[in-house]
Amino acid sequence: MTKNIVTVGGGTGSFTLLKGLKHIKGVNLTAIVPSTDSGGSSGRLMDEFGHLPPGDIRQCLIALMDDEEDSLTMRNLFNYRFDKGENGLKGHNFGNLFLTALTEIFENDSIKAIKAAGEILNIRGRVLPVTNNKSVLVAEYENGATLEGEHSIDEPPYPHDGRLKIVNLYTKPTSTISKEVRDTILNADLIVTGPGDVYTSLCANAVNKGFSEAMKKTKAKFVYVVNLVTKYGQTFGYTSSDHVKEITKYFGKQPDYVIINNAKLPTDILKRYVLQNDYEVINDLKDLKGSKIIFKNVLSNEKIVNAKGDVLVRSLIRHDPIILSKLIEKILNESI
Amino acid sequence: MTKNIVTVGGGTGSFTLLKGLKHIKGVNLTAIVPSTDSGGSSGRLMDEFGHLPPGDIRQCLIALMDDEEDSLTMRNLFNYRFDKGENGLKGHNFGNLFLTALTEIFENDSIKAIKAAGEILNIRGRVLPVTNNKSVLVAEYENGATLEGEHSIDEPPYPHDGRLKIVNLYTKPTSTISKEVRDTILNADLIVTGPGDVYTSLCANAVNKGFSEAMKKTKAKFVYVVNLVTKYGQTFGYTSSDHVKEITKYFGKQPDYVIINNAKLPTDILKRYVLQNDYEVINDLKDLKGSKIIFKNVLSNEKIVNAKGDVLVRSLIRHDPIILSKLIEKILNESI
Repeated sequence: MTKNIVTVGGGTGSFTLLKGLKHIKGVNLTAIVPSTDSGGSSGRLMDEFGHLPPGDIRQCLIALMDDEEDSLTMRNLFNYRFDKGENGLKGHNFGNLFLTALTEIFENDSIKAIKAAGEILNIRGRVLPVTNNKSVLVAEYENGATLEGEHSIDEPPYPHDGRLKIVNLYTKPTSTISKEVRDTILNADLIVTGPGDVYTSLCANAVNKGFSEAMKKTKAKFVYVVNLVTKYGQTFGYTSSDHVKEITKYFGKQPDYVIINNAKLPTDILKRYVLQNDYEVINDLKDLKGSKIIFKNVLSNEKIVNAKGDVLVRSLIRHDPIILSKLIEKILNESI
Repeated sequence: MTKNIVTVGGGTGSFTLLKGLKHIKGVNLTAIVPSTDSGGSSGRLMDEFGHLPPGDIRQCLIALMDDEEDSLTMRNLFNYRFDKGENGLKGHNFGNLFLTALTEIFENDSIKAIKAAGEILNIRGRVLPVTNNKSVLVAEYENGATLEGEHSIDEPPYPHDGRLKIVNLYTKPTSTISKEVRDTILNADLIVTGPGDVYTSLCANAVNKGFSEAMKKTKAKFVYVVNLVTKYGQTFGYTSSDHVKEITKYFGKQPDYVIINNAKLPTDILKRYVLQNDYEVINDLKDLKGSKIIFKNVLSNEKIVNAKGDVLVRSLIRHDPIILSKLIEKILNESI
């Protein structure tokens, strides 16, 4: 019987995951993405058109496209950011404009637009925004301060102290998962979240009403892939057990499997992370009641090149899509 | 043996022609388009990116796409104009942005970009800009005045008198047809120009250096489809013989075949044209030495609906693509 794998997340983390998972034969793959991205091109388009933000959707669509040479141009195109066209085009991502135009053609029905995009791009799987409601992500910090907007939380404005811990994450107004998302979670055989920004990419999904309830009900195996490095402003000083605790808190369920990298990160790259106050995630987990901890070299050797015109900082070091997908396939088949 | 049909023109005229011609079996179809479009979205993109203007290329690509339901979304998308996004996106045509992004990806090689677009859109035929040189179209009027830029000639600014006859049309600086265009003309079995704006869409090709020389050399049958209505600012008061004269002057060759509509234009539509100072083309040709005149009902019954967000005035009455293509097929096979 065809099995259902569901990813929960956004950004480069879900991109990496899906790049590998799409190669697993005989599974239905669904990527659930946050509806609260407010940065850059996505945020501008959301403000001007009132659609759901396209950024995470776009990244997942690209990840699910064919890797063949044939579709290289279309992938490059979808990733392309306009670097000219003052006051307007500049900084906009072509894929985002593609999704925006499609959503307008489908009279603001994002779900139909994403489906049509998937058909045009001939993707292996489907992409679902976690909610069809428009809302803003809000983070409350240990000192009582709050920041609103995914982009602000992701890159806190001066003088916010990026070492402050986020003690509460929610959307304003309250948003509810769509029926499709609920059904997808309930019918899943395996749900995987991470790698990715713990609050703005992963928990940004889980904070929607109905999400943790569905997680508690589903019989799906729940897998969490711990990040390689911490992120100033979100997970400064977090150990692997801190990561797992936060995921458990927001997802409403402790991961059945936790994947932790055990390979040494390259020193030269760590040095570049340190300049941004980001550090290797210290592992303090050997075993955890209720979870199976999988230690493994999951590092990618691929060199990361930013898309032309891409002004955002992307991660310099990534998980290996194929290693991750093989691990997940083993978990799915209970051979691990 | 496969025969080569070449269209010369731009705008809705070439669109109409290609919509029909693509159904002729066993021919290679090439659309030669002007490189001097300076209006709206095309002009802005040309200014900001320094590429050839994408407007006419886009229209021809859409015309050459599959008519099946399958590609409807892609056609709608390519035609879509952003109607929100102040100071930037608004007014931009998605298809133009598609071509612009592709041209950037192919490092400003318009020819490669158009080829790639054709492959993505799975078109029947190919589209060639008449020149790879960037230049501006200049019109000189009977009173000695000049206007620069395709857009200005197309919609002359106040206080230009739209009844003034254009006595000379050229590009500044001088631009030369590409080798591909020259070869295409020389190897053609049939070349058809019109319907379309005589100066800004048709002769805008012919004024490029090398064009009329190639027309004189080629053994291709040369067909001209006369417009249904005159155009204030370009062909005010022109009869059918005036049209043929101008085409002959700039193309350097008298058409072997002239197709003239003989059906009555609907009065209600003519009334709307009159508001723009545009009138039915009076036919003063019965026969013409050196040309075969084909009188025929070539009117389309299709109702014209502007693309959403399209701010330019499009023609209300058009030639029928299938009737035109059947006539042209007959000419090609020498059965007319």
